Amino acid sequence: MSVSRRSFLGGAAAALGTLGSGIDVFAQNRQGALAGAPGQRPSMDDYDSIAHLSSNENCWGPPESVLKAMNQSFKYAMRYGYPGGDVQGELAKHHGVKNDNLLITAGSGEVLDVVGTTFLQNGKKVLGVEPSYSSVYQHATSIKSSAIKLPLNQKDHRQNIAAIVKTANERASEIGFVYLCNPNNPTGLIVTKDEIKQLLDGLPQGMPVLIDEAYHHFVDDARYATSVPYVVEGRPVIIARTFSKIAALAAMRIGYAVAPAELIQKMRPYSMGSVNVAARFGAVAALKDAKSQAEIKARTIALRKKVTAELDAYGYETIPSETNFFMVSLNGREVQPVIDEFRGKKVAVGRPFPPMTQHLRVSIGTEDEMERFMKAFKEIFPAKSRTTAAG
Amino acid sequence: MSVSRRSFLGGAAAALGTLGSGIDVFAQNRQGALAGAPGQRPSMDDYDSIAHLSSNENCWGPPESVLKAMNQSFKYAMRYGYPGGDVQGELAKHHGVKNDNLLITAGSGEVLDVVGTTFLQNGKKVLGVEPSYSSVYQHATSIKSSAIKLPLNQKDHRQNIAAIVKTANERASEIGFVYLCNPNNPTGLIVTKDEIKQLLDGLPQGMPVLIDEAYHHFVDDARYATSVPYVVEGRPVIIARTFSKIAALAAMRIGYAVAPAELIQKMRPYSMGSVNVAARFGAVAALKDAKSQAEIKARTIALRKKVTAELDAYGYETIPSETNFFMVSLNGREVQPVIDEFRGKKVAVGRPFPPMTQHLRVSIGTEDEMERFMKAFKEIFPAKSRTTAAG
Repeated sequence: MSVSRRSFLGGAAAALGTLGSGIDVFAQNRQGALAGAPGQRPSMDDYDSIAHLSSNENCWGPPESVLKAMNQSFKYAMRYGYPGGDVQGELAKHHGVKNDNLLITAGSGEVLDVVGTTFLQNGKKVLGVEPSYSSVYQHATSIKSSAIKLPLNQKDHRQNIAAIVKTANERASEIGFVYLCNPNNPTGLIVTKDEIKQLLDGLPQGMPVLIDEAYHHFVDDARYATSVPYVVEGRPVIIARTFSKIAALAAMRIGYAVAPAELIQKMRPYSMGSVNVAARFGAVAALKDAKSQAEIKARTIALRKKVTAELDAYGYETIPSETNFFMVSLNGREVQPVIDEFRGKKVAVGRPFPPMTQHLRVSIGTEDEMERFMKAFKEIFPAKSRTTAAG
Repeated sequence: MSVSRRSFLGGAAAALGTLGSGIDVFAQNRQGALAGAPGQRPSMDDYDSIAHLSSNENCWGPPESVLKAMNQSFKYAMRYGYPGGDVQGELAKHHGVKNDNLLITAGSGEVLDVVGTTFLQNGKKVLGVEPSYSSVYQHATSIKSSAIKLPLNQKDHRQNIAAIVKTANERASEIGFVYLCNPNNPTGLIVTKDEIKQLLDGLPQGMPVLIDEAYHHFVDDARYATSVPYVVEGRPVIIARTFSKIAALAAMRIGYAVAPAELIQKMRPYSMGSVNVAARFGAVAALKDAKSQAEIKARTIALRKKVTAELDAYGYETIPSETNFFMVSLNGREVQPVIDEFRGKKVAVGRPFPPMTQHLRVSIGTEDEMERFMKAFKEIFPAKSRTTAAG
């Protein structure tokens, strides 16, 4: 180790000191850290020069309360059992459910995989819409199952609940579970609480429904509600939640499922039950720091409204999002070359979400990043080009 | 947050400062941390008053190099992609294998589960010895499969390789894979490299063998060798390794499998592919800090030799271990009440490993913890009681 004790503690303090200090300091420290980060991959040398608007991350990072808790957790790095980090107990209180209604996972991605592995045995399929968060469909394929994918409404890009109900009943024997992302990724559109009721009342008795509420915390629309109360009612509903979005813990890997105990019990053998101590301590602290989450929500929505208004005024229509990302119409241009053009300007956006390949998904980043996005957008696209569709 | 910025940074510095500073400081800081740890469970109030000799942990915790790397990783806590933490690349170099021979997992526990889920479909069973690390057998049961468990040699508690080969051939159609823990947990005994060859040459063509090398780094015996070279040869061997033991990252959850690419490919859909950034950065740093691992090995073996010599002299025979734990004969007493008696003296040991229920497994802890263990042992057991077997 060539790092002196002094620079080590200095670096640690600097890293931790980013937390309440706003965007600029944070960006600066990230840059500083890159120089000395262990295991740095040369291909990512330019990581910090990129505006990161492609993964729906919380660009501001976890608040000081969470970083402090994660730092404290290292005292137990070598232990299997340790005091603290009782995420399950805290979540049970938070949601008003019992411990056995919860499965703590490595991000909500583990929930999605585990539901697939559990309920797609014997050739059963998952039913959902396209485009949506495709991880569930990809996992189905990887375990030699498949998906029945219904289109979104042509006009408003919303999920067609009546069509899901109809297909679920007509093909009930083929279907292992229904997948619904609410709000949907990549559109950012909600399924209303009335539509959720219509769905659950209309499905064949006992058919499990996985409702992915990864972006729950960003929703303002009063017609939306979480579906957790249906779990309490005992309906076969599995809610996936994550600390990766509003809580900014994507790289720490922690999420959870809320579901009736008998479904959790079926899923548990396929879950790793193996979430790390730093994520556990961080998640508990995040649950207790409602103020920081409210700040992130407000900041995110304000930036989203500003940028989408600017795009709409510029002649490029956006889909009205309730999340920390939005989709903008490219007025007939295909998205992949556009993504590549943005990348050349050091702005990461996208990816393609077939069949909506003439829309671009943009995550909300820092104010600076959004300015870089708008600047690049105006360089790539002419103003008022609504009538120049290329294809 | 009632924690001032000053006490926060002070606490962080203190926590990080434990790392090169030896056992006493570390214990003290752990204690200090407990008072303010978030999500602390009341039932674990006495955590620090217990000598932790029941989970084969590295009681000294990760070295400064690793804690520093983990602290730096928090800069990317909110990201999905980030520079650094290329554990797979580092491990490929370390083992002289290719990237596609590796699966990075949440501890080696995930490897064990994933191998089970992958190779025990359609009612196949796992073949192994008992007692061994029973996680594999428990997982088999949880997914409605089962295990064929052969006894250890009556006399020396070693694994009977000829018997495993014989059963594997006689019942080949029933068997999904063979499990071998080397060195074995709970006995601490190795399977020699000659015996591994005998096993691999004797098994039916293509039958996968999972070799759990969790305690690899503690072995001194020259008759032992890792089985990684068999992977390079292309044999159907899956090696499970972990950063939970010598690297002291049990709570961070990182381990890996080394196997032929076609086996990794079969396993990957059942793996979460979701290891957190702090564990990745920590693991890369641990791989580069051979000196710290050598120190832990030397310290562990010295303490193990001291305590086992003392027990042997006291009239209680120990099984010659090559790991960071050992088994001691209780001269005919059943282990569960003994574990309870130790627990009353604030020493955690055990658990029972049927059918060896008249042996006690003891992990190597700090010098202080081993003194507390010996003191408690002498209070619970009379000296020279070899002839007082209770049946």
